[in-house]
Amino acid sequence: MAVTPELLARLREIAGAAHVLTVPEDTVVYEQDAFLVARAHPDAVVLPGSAGEVAAVARAAHEAGVPLIVRGAGTGLNGGSIPVRGGLVVVLTRLDRIVEFDARSRTATVEPGVINADLTARAAQAALFYAPDPGSQAVSTIGGNVGNNAGGPHCLAYGVTGNHVLEMDVVLPAGETVTVGSRAVDAPGYDLAGLLVGSEGTLGIVTGVTVRLMRRAEAVRTLLVVFETIDDASHAVSDIIAAGIVPTAMEMMDGVVMRAVEAAIQAGYPADAGAVLLIEVESHAEVLPRVMDRIDEIARRHRPRLLRTAEGARERELLWKGRKEGAGALGRLAPSYYLHDGVVPRTRLPEVMRRVQEIARAHDLVIGNLFHAGDGNLHPTILFDPRAPGMLERVVAAGEEILRACVGAGGSITGEHGVGIEKREYMRWIFTEADLGAMRRVKRAFDPAGRLNPGKLLPDGPPGDYAVRPGTRAWS
Amino acid sequence: MAVTPELLARLREIAGAAHVLTVPEDTVVYEQDAFLVARAHPDAVVLPGSAGEVAAVARAAHEAGVPLIVRGAGTGLNGGSIPVRGGLVVVLTRLDRIVEFDARSRTATVEPGVINADLTARAAQAALFYAPDPGSQAVSTIGGNVGNNAGGPHCLAYGVTGNHVLEMDVVLPAGETVTVGSRAVDAPGYDLAGLLVGSEGTLGIVTGVTVRLMRRAEAVRTLLVVFETIDDASHAVSDIIAAGIVPTAMEMMDGVVMRAVEAAIQAGYPADAGAVLLIEVESHAEVLPRVMDRIDEIARRHRPRLLRTAEGARERELLWKGRKEGAGALGRLAPSYYLHDGVVPRTRLPEVMRRVQEIARAHDLVIGNLFHAGDGNLHPTILFDPRAPGMLERVVAAGEEILRACVGAGGSITGEHGVGIEKREYMRWIFTEADLGAMRRVKRAFDPAGRLNPGKLLPDGPPGDYAVRPGTRAWS
Repeated sequence: MAVTPELLARLREIAGAAHVLTVPEDTVVYEQDAFLVARAHPDAVVLPGSAGEVAAVARAAHEAGVPLIVRGAGTGLNGGSIPVRGGLVVVLTRLDRIVEFDARSRTATVEPGVINADLTARAAQAALFYAPDPGSQAVSTIGGNVGNNAGGPHCLAYGVTGNHVLEMDVVLPAGETVTVGSRAVDAPGYDLAGLLVGSEGTLGIVTGVTVRLMRRAEAVRTLLVVFETIDDASHAVSDIIAAGIVPTAMEMMDGVVMRAVEAAIQAGYPADAGAVLLIEVESHAEVLPRVMDRIDEIARRHRPRLLRTAEGARERELLWKGRKEGAGALGRLAPSYYLHDGVVPRTRLPEVMRRVQEIARAHDLVIGNLFHAGDGNLHPTILFDPRAPGMLERVVAAGEEILRACVGAGGSITGEHGVGIEKREYMRWIFTEADLGAMRRVKRAFDPAGRLNPGKLLPDGPPGDYAVRPGTRAWS
Repeated sequence: MAVTPELLARLREIAGAAHVLTVPEDTVVYEQDAFLVARAHPDAVVLPGSAGEVAAVARAAHEAGVPLIVRGAGTGLNGGSIPVRGGLVVVLTRLDRIVEFDARSRTATVEPGVINADLTARAAQAALFYAPDPGSQAVSTIGGNVGNNAGGPHCLAYGVTGNHVLEMDVVLPAGETVTVGSRAVDAPGYDLAGLLVGSEGTLGIVTGVTVRLMRRAEAVRTLLVVFETIDDASHAVSDIIAAGIVPTAMEMMDGVVMRAVEAAIQAGYPADAGAVLLIEVESHAEVLPRVMDRIDEIARRHRPRLLRTAEGARERELLWKGRKEGAGALGRLAPSYYLHDGVVPRTRLPEVMRRVQEIARAHDLVIGNLFHAGDGNLHPTILFDPRAPGMLERVVAAGEEILRACVGAGGSITGEHGVGIEKREYMRWIFTEADLGAMRRVKRAFDPAGRLNPGKLLPDGPPGDYAVRPGTRAWS
């Protein structure tokens, strides 16, 4: 069904005329997200100002039979907030209040539009932190993080978003509001909170989230290790994990990324080496020296060119700055890039990294690698020029081969970016028809008319029903 | 539908005649589980010997329209495996193989009938452990633990069963098999593994489980603290948690239980004190003394009569033996008892414990308390004589008041024992009709005919359709 004048009038009553967008100049920004190769035009956009308005919008859309596409900051990398089949885009950025902050119980209740970094800043005032730290955290919202079950460098030790969500208020497609999970204790019955985290806006609209906050460990140490080859670095990661050490973060950048970062911000990475590992360990002060010695010893087995422990907070921040700005620095090297996301068991890291390099050579492409090595979560980033004839096709083909290599090694098609439109057909690689059938039954249980974020997550729509048109932004 | 001779013939073909039970002498043991106040007669019992046989049994029952009630060792405390509406009980104890044990990736793949303690013993050979340690672990099965999302003393630090399940093979009600979760990496799509854990046999039949194993911390210290009153002990728990210390386990027993334990096994508990805390901390060797000093300091604020650190493994085992045999020791004090399970935010522990004592006095009942204090997970255990006129009614009323007090304090109706038949009506206390409606839609998505463990978990059957007839066993 289309968005009718009657529906628009109803939406203006609910959210105020200023918060209902219909003309292309206003809605064009909602045609795409950080998935670089697709866009689609929404029929209309509404920016409700409260959970009650969200529920009213959902009821109005339900009565009109119009699809709803929920959107936070638009930093998603899988095209999950692109309205590929038209409909009404519901933008939740105005729901940006930290509703309750309880330092004693170490919980915060926030609206979905709260920026991840804003929650982190509020938590820091109470000497606490919110663990999931996606690369997009300066701009992405808690609601979007929940929808995609976002990860981040420090999720190696602390777990991804789902491990930190306690309770949520959720508006179902017909407009009724339910509460799932529990802010204080494990809830009995079916774990609907767990089901909704990572459901990419296809089951319900989250209007409130209570998250768990954590205390900082008392001491932190950051180690930079530069290797001659990415193979050496990959073996070091595999051996550190096999030794039973769980660093708080263990990030890898290959030579392509190191050179880009050095050119951009001079973080102190040698520009001619093969790979760098950034290893951070948080623990008790007495324990840290011993753990770092053990990591040092393992790393030295793999011919490192350089090992350097960050001296003080400033140097630590600079080393991290290099990692965090890696994707942006890569962006300077080519007109566009395709940031991939795959995951492999960590023991298979060395062979899969070699395979990525083979694929790059075979397709005559430059692929930079900056990723959460400790999780086996790869982010091969393919540089390209969208104007070069036939290049985008090679980029897409190379990306698909990389993901097949991940799956072939016992891994999966996404580590943290989700499925969206980008990978819904790849779901068939790792799930049987029966497995997908069980997921479809869950989808229909929540959304029998298929109105919530249609064409996403599950391979049940006609493939390729979105236009391939490269954009310009990305985060990792 | 009833179990017909044709269905029985089919079941004998599938599982072998010796594994299909129909006469009362054989089936009577499957009338009840460790929920002490109910029993019901199954139409037949089948003990399949493989996942394939389970799927074939499910298909046959589906075609015959007969209810399926899955059962492990029968140690469940909520009546979840009682066939309250008749049907076919499917006992999975013959599926007892550890199929794969991978020390390097720290995973084990087991059949659902594997006894928890047997997996623990196998893991110990590789210097690993399986964290969930329910009181029933010597006899309860991994499948039953998964169905009820079982906890245990050491889940305070390590999390309950759901945190340790990676992948499962599940037979759906019509007999098809799906794989949920992933043994190596986070799986994309809906988190059906999380949904199935704790679903109490109402959505599918688990035929294979891959679990995560852990390495032991390098050092452990166990501290016993005896308090004059349960109020002092509760405040100590609340203060230790508020200080940001997470012991591996923090168990409490009140005076009633201490006296019972002393009479039974002479664990060294002073018999006239009010409560004892058993606090175990695992950490790095260098850190332990400092953490224990901090716990000691906090405990001393609450007028302890005695603090004792276990000297060596033997004394540690003896202290734990007292805790683990607490329920059994209580059983000597009265002809029967009702072991309850509620949970409260840990900050509310002192007031709720006072309320439990008030309820005991008001109903003229003896209630012993032995529980996972660090989790706020109470197990008030009401002693009674089933032959005393009107006593069972008082027991049930007191239990209901205790659970209402838990919910009133921001807690919940169950911490780890699940809902089953025992608490399905209480689900209405904590969930709205809309919340329950969402759960019912999920139930129907998996089991449209309502044939899988009917009458359990959700308050959608006629209440009270099971006979109250006290049994004799329990675990906590």
